[in-house]
Parts: sequence; C-alpha cells; structure tokens
Amino acid sequence: MTDSEKQCVLVTGGAGYIGSHTVIELIQAGYPVVVLDNLVNSYKGTTQPNPNGVIVSLQRCEEITKTTIPFYEVDLLDKDAVRQVFKKHGDIGFVIHIAGLKAVGESCDLPLLYYNNNLVGTITLLEVMKEFGVYNIVFSSSATVYGDPQYLPIDEKHPVGGCTNPYGKTKYFIEEMIKDLCKSSKQWNAVLLRYFNPIGAHISGLIGEDPQGHPNNLMPYISQVAVGRRPELSVFGSDYDTPDGTGVRDYIHVVDLAQGHVAAIKKFKENCGLKVYNLGTGVGYSVLQMVKAVEKASGNKVAYKICPRRPGDVAISYANPELAERELGWKAQKGLQEMCEDVWRWQSKNPMGFRIAENGSE
Amino acid sequence: MTDSEKQCVLVTGGAGYIGSHTVIELIQAGYPVVVLDNLVNSYKGTTQPNPNGVIVSLQRCEEITKTTIPFYEVDLLDKDAVRQVFKKHGDIGFVIHIAGLKAVGESCDLPLLYYNNNLVGTITLLEVMKEFGVYNIVFSSSATVYGDPQYLPIDEKHPVGGCTNPYGKTKYFIEEMIKDLCKSSKQWNAVLLRYFNPIGAHISGLIGEDPQGHPNNLMPYISQVAVGRRPELSVFGSDYDTPDGTGVRDYIHVVDLAQGHVAAIKKFKENCGLKVYNLGTGVGYSVLQMVKAVEKASGNKVAYKICPRRPGDVAISYANPELAERELGWKAQKGLQEMCEDVWRWQSKNPMGFRIAENGSE
Repeated sequence: MTDSEKQCVLVTGGAGYIGSHTVIELIQAGYPVVVLDNLVNSYKGTTQPNPNGVIVSLQRCEEITKTTIPFYEVDLLDKDAVRQVFKKHGDIGFVIHIAGLKAVGESCDLPLLYYNNNLVGTITLLEVMKEFGVYNIVFSSSATVYGDPQYLPIDEKHPVGGCTNPYGKTKYFIEEMIKDLCKSSKQWNAVLLRYFNPIGAHISGLIGEDPQGHPNNLMPYISQVAVGRRPELSVFGSDYDTPDGTGVRDYIHVVDLAQGHVAAIKKFKENCGLKVYNLGTGVGYSVLQMVKAVEKASGNKVAYKICPRRPGDVAISYANPELAERELGWKAQKGLQEMCEDVWRWQSKNPMGFRIAENGSE
Repeated sequence: MTDSEKQCVLVTGGAGYIGSHTVIELIQAGYPVVVLDNLVNSYKGTTQPNPNGVIVSLQRCEEITKTTIPFYEVDLLDKDAVRQVFKKHGDIGFVIHIAGLKAVGESCDLPLLYYNNNLVGTITLLEVMKEFGVYNIVFSSSATVYGDPQYLPIDEKHPVGGCTNPYGKTKYFIEEMIKDLCKSSKQWNAVLLRYFNPIGAHISGLIGEDPQGHPNNLMPYISQVAVGRRPELSVFGSDYDTPDGTGVRDYIHVVDLAQGHVAAIKKFKENCGLKVYNLGTGVGYSVLQMVKAVEKASGNKVAYKICPRRPGDVAISYANPELAERELGWKAQKGLQEMCEDVWRWQSKNPMGFRIAENGSE
C-alpha cells in the first residue's frame, strides 16, 4: 500500500491529550485523519474561530502538521451523528477509539455516567462501524485491566479483570466485547493497546496534557506545582514496598505512545484478527523520582506533602513491552529526562493549558 | 406496610417464561404489577385481541389472577418509551429486571446484539429509574457468572467472572454495574438473583416455557420430544465425571423461582443495599435422570442420541441455597417429579406452546 492509497483513520477523542498527539503522528505517517470528539474534557477556545470549529488543541495540530483536520463535535451516544461522519467520509478504513471518561475517583461516584459513556458509546461506535463495513479498530485500553500485578514486569498473558473501579471495568468490559466480536467473525481486526502511564508533550510545546479542574494524574499535577499554578503536590503513600516507599509506575512519552497507534494501524494490513499489546517502556520510576526529574527539567522546586495511600492504588506497575517490539516493530524511544523537558516546555509556554490566561484564575 | 399500600412492581421481560410466572406470584402476593416487554422472544397471538394487546402469555396470567395487567410493548433501548411507562405509573417502587437475550450459542455468533440489548438496555433502565427516583432493583442473574465451578455446592462467595460466552458476560457485567451503583450511593438497593436451571410450569398448565424455534435449554427439548414435536434429544457429552457420564444441573421449579422474586421485593423494606442470592434447590440431576423423569411424568418414551460435549459446558453445577433461606426466608419447595408433571401438563395441553396450532408446522 502506498501512501496515496492510505485509507482514512477516524480518531475518537482526537481533540484530547492522547488523541491529539496520535493525530499528529498519523498525519506525519501519511494517513488522512478525521477527528470525532464530544469535547467534554476539552477547553473550547473562543478567540480564533476556524472553519473546523474553535478547538485549540486541533488548531495547534493543524499548525504542527500544516494540514486541515476534519473535525466533528459528536458524542458517541448520538448514533445518527456518528453515522453521518462515516457517511461523509466513505474512505474511513480504520478507527482509533480513544474517546472515554477516565477519572478513577469520579467513576466511583458516578458509575452510571461511566458505564453509559464508555460502554454504550463503544457499542454504538462498533455498530456503526459494522453498518459501514469498517472492521478495523484500535482500542485505548489500560494497564488498569491487570488489577494488582501478580508478577512483574506485566506481560500480556497476565490475568485481567481484577480492577475495582468502574473506569477500569469499562476498559476491561470493552476489551471483552471486542474480543468476542473478533471471535464471532474473521472480518474483524482489533488491536487492544494497554497504556501504562503516558506523560510528556509534543516537542513543539504547542500541545500537551490539559486536565480540566483538579488533575487526576501525577504528571500534570507536578508540572502545575512547578509552574506555580498549585501550591504543593500530594504524594499518596510513602510506605509502599518500593525503594523510596512511593508508588512506582511505567511512564511513557505520549509521542512514543502515539507512534504505537500508527504501528497498530499498519498491523491491519496482515488481517491480524485480535491482538493485544502493552505500550510501556519496561522501566518504573517512583513518585519522588518524578518530582526530582521535573525539578531538574524546570529548575523549580516542587513542594510536596506525604498523604495516606489511596484505596485501589498498587505499589508497583511496569510493563514487559517486548511483544509490541516483536510484532509491531515498535519500541518506546524517549527517556525520563526528555519526557520531563517536554512536559516543562508545554507547561511553561502554556501555564493555563489551552485556556487563554486573562487573569490567571480558572 | 399493608397490601393496599404496596407500591407497584415493574417487571421487564414480564411476558416471557420467568417473567410471566413472576407476575402471577407478585399479584397473588398483593403487588400491583406493570409489565414491559419487547416481545422479541414471544409468540404474539392474533385470535383473541384484548385491551392490553394480544399477548397470549399475559392473557393467561390475567385469566389465572383474575386481574387486568397493564402491559407496554417497549424495548429498553427506547429510553423515551421507558420514561413514558414510569411517567404513567408514578407508583412504581420496584423494578424486577428480567428482560434480556439469553441464548448462549447465538450470543457467540452475535456478540454485539447481546451487548447492545442486555448492557445498553440495562443502563437505559437504570438511568430512567434514577430520573424517576426508583432505586430498588431485582436483577435476573445466572449461575453462569460462576464459570467453571471451583467447588460444590456453589455458594455466593464463589469467584465470579469466569464465563466465556457473551451471554454470560452480559450477566456478569450487569452485576458489576449494579454493585458499583450500590457502592456509589446508599439510595440504591439491589438484589441480584443467580438462577440455576429453571424448569417446570404453572400448575394450571396455562403458561410455561415456549422457546421460539429450536430450544436452547434441555427441558423444553425433552418435553417437545415427549410430545412428539421433535424426533429425538441430543445429549451433549456422556463422558463427564458424573454418575452416569452426563452433565448435572440444579433444576428449580419456575414457580419457586418466581416466589424468590417476591421475597427479594420484600427485602427492600430493610433498605438492604446490595444483596446476592443463589436461587437453586441444592440438588443436582443428570441429563439422563431428567429424561427418565419426563418419561415417567408423560408416560411417553423420550428418544435420545449421545453427541460430543459442547465447548463451555461444565460437568456439574448445583447451588448452595442456604443464604436465600437465611436472609430471604425463601426455599425451593417443589421436587423433580412435580417439575416434570407440571412441564408435561403445559406441554401436552399446548403442544405448540402459545401458538394456536393450525397445521402443526412451525
């Protein structure tokens, strides 16, 4: 298949953190892209309207790629609107399904919201794909499906389903649905990508992680403290059985992760059926190591306080990423310092994220 | 609470086999009932229209109970139609959610259909319940959530989630969703009833199991052979590690099962939160024992042939039903011979089920 013959990739959640980085890597690999997003977690800029709407993250993707990116503000629960996108773009050959609610704590408070959004949204998407004869899907899964690790590093054969929060369960349930689809018919090809902990930002500093409100993940929190937007970091648990007592995770640069999606799309050429891959580096860092790395990258002190463990957090998690290297020819390239420098470039250039800071308040 | 103060019970799937028997027991226990059903597995009679439509199973429930049963032909996927039912019946205080697709083999061929119907239907129902402030739900779960038994008899502490077909997974996923809802808010009360193998029929012989097309379950198959509607039974596997080599199950009379639902509704008076109960007898019978019992009840020979095992079938499954006895005050009363006699009464009075046999063909 030459570049000019490449079918179009629909990216759900393409205006978000992982979605926008994936869109850039796809375009740079020569794939036409269509973005669908309900913008529920996106900041909608209002100062620079463009023909595709006024989504700052996508505007910046267009700036980086020097292309126009077709965008649809569509909720996956709106089946007819999803159909319209497939109807308009008859060349969609692949779907990368990243859209989904993702805050663990919120999912415990509002399980029905999560089940509705994530499960029903996915079922609707799969139904419309089937209607339009599009049988290739990459799904954003998560290492959370492994639950409490039974051994380390975690490979793809590790048991799944042990997650205790609704967010994690939606990832697991969707994996099972897609597996059953692939079992039911050889038409379907699916690559389930189990993300470890994506951090970092595009090297341009133009796009990056921009959580709305209180960050749920460690890295945006650290960087918001480093930039002076928040007073101090809460470190949950310092008595884990780890070298410094704080939790250890496998942080992966979001651009590496995005390139994993491009590799997954290429896998469909083989009519691959169901494939499951970890996307991680294979290396774990503790919370305090992350704090130090951001301090080094930013030159700023990151104040923190030790808090009790959070229920459901595991001590250590890191991937065995060998299967993706062997079967996708993909391997994470960027190390911890590069991740932190890229985060810092994004955070310091955009202290309020995509929001145009007028008075510094949120 | 006196009978006259009793709130109304909405029964989804109330026109089906388990639903119709449950409706009768509820009415006889003094509960007003509203039935919602999409009739996807029901035979719609056309000869005796009544004001509630022409659903033979419900007509017969009305005959047995000498009441009029409000019925709505509504699909749970049609959220607005579900809302209309709650709006019209402001006294709905409880929901017994029995509706769902239930054929294991079909679920493997059409997983998306099952996930859409069962999961999305349930999420829609739960959302509408929340909208209308109805927080009490009894859910028709199944012993299938236990997967391959790790010990016998199976109690409610047995691990769940080991089921390998989409039908069983929808039961498990829905259980998890309801558990998470109950965890998220003390407003919710839920009783998950894990059915073992319901058979039998109402003593009147007016209602019973009436599978459309090829029966998926053992008992209707045996009784259709006994009545001459099918030539012979296929026995899947005769080399299991059981006394006679055929699979052993815990068959429970559908009227006992229906009474378990009434007991579950009464539990809500305690604001019970999440409760999970097996509905079984605690006794297992083999396929060949069932054949002999139907032969005895019917006086007819049941021809059978031995076939290879079916993938996914377990050798032996029977319940520990003690928790339901202790906490619901419910215990199965009816034995094997009564079950078979009741099946036979139904089958011999209605050789073509609810269908008015005109020429004996299907």
